[in-house]
Amino acid sequence: MNAPAAASRLSVPTKGEETRAAILEAAVLQASTSGYASLTIGSLAEKTGMSKSGLFAHFGSKEELQIAALDEASRRFTEQVFLPAMKAPRGLKRVRAIFDNWTTWPERAKLPGGCPVDQATREFQHQPGAMRDAVLERQRVLDRELSKSVQMAIDAGELAADTDPRQFAMEMIGIMLVFYRVQLLIGSTEAAERAHVAFDRLIKNHTR
Amino acid sequence: MNAPAAASRLSVPTKGEETRAAILEAAVLQASTSGYASLTIGSLAEKTGMSKSGLFAHFGSKEELQIAALDEASRRFTEQVFLPAMKAPRGLKRVRAIFDNWTTWPERAKLPGGCPVDQATREFQHQPGAMRDAVLERQRVLDRELSKSVQMAIDAGELAADTDPRQFAMEMIGIMLVFYRVQLLIGSTEAAERAHVAFDRLIKNHTR
Repeated sequence: MNAPAAASRLSVPTKGEETRAAILEAAVLQASTSGYASLTIGSLAEKTGMSKSGLFAHFGSKEELQIAALDEASRRFTEQVFLPAMKAPRGLKRVRAIFDNWTTWPERAKLPGGCPVDQATREFQHQPGAMRDAVLERQRVLDRELSKSVQMAIDAGELAADTDPRQFAMEMIGIMLVFYRVQLLIGSTEAAERAHVAFDRLIKNHTR
Repeated sequence: MNAPAAASRLSVPTKGEETRAAILEAAVLQASTSGYASLTIGSLAEKTGMSKSGLFAHFGSKEELQIAALDEASRRFTEQVFLPAMKAPRGLKRVRAIFDNWTTWPERAKLPGGCPVDQATREFQHQPGAMRDAVLERQRVLDRELSKSVQMAIDAGELAADTDPRQFAMEMIGIMLVFYRVQLLIGSTEAAERAHVAFDRLIKNHTR
């Protein structure tokens, strides 16, 4: 990192940056419960106590606001799920850490409506447009990063050599999706237990 | 069935019933691509070429229309996924038939936006109200019916006696959810192949 970049990263956020961050925090929370379609300049102005024109200065349109909210949600997902897992050694321990962090992150991030990245996928995957493109790009990145972690566990000899990392990653996502879904039906505790039973079985199938 | 009920089932649908069916067909199609939030009396009037007041005569409010569309979507899901599977003998063959029918039903029902029951769940599970209640009720029924089919396979000795039918059903739903999700990313053919790999492994784990 060169000196000016380092200096700018260490500097106190400007008033404008702080305002933008506050708007995005409110936007991610709202998107997680009520969906991105609910993110209008008007509703966010009301939630943040700002004027509509003040909000327009930061986000020129509803779509721009939605995309910025998804970016922020993705940043937080990475921060809460992947980054802490990097402290675990490469291999199965890291794959397990990702899975565990993933089950708990909406709660830790105080998002009672659940994962806001998942929400965006559910909402836009069948609606062509900029949000769907952003959602599919996020899925590609997730797919790639998960597969990489699985590949490392194969390289470390902790998963069988014939494990297909993309298949493993896909099944891991399936367990997570149904975990998110059944929480309301059977409660978080049983949902988490059942998700771990499924995940342990997935690992066992690939360790032999 | 008593005679009047049988007669009424065999009778030609009234004009009113036909209109209602046409509205609901358009509503399910629209919900599958654009979501139930898009189901306004106005948008449906436009799609069906009816007057708004004509639509109001059938559905008094947007919520009533949404719930009727979900009921219709659920009816079609049952008709396309569960009913044909009842022709297969009780046991693993029937469980497999449910799984296969499930992967193909949106296409067979000409719903390019994907499963409209899944869409309702994705859209409303975090929004308290009548639609969430309806969605959770649908999930409960699905859970119960799937678990029953799995139990029959256990009773028939085709799945191991210590198989937990609800765990099996939950994992089956997880595979289906990720199958629906990755279709856009990797294409329907690869998505279906990978879903079947996951499902075959699930069965193998419980047959020994």
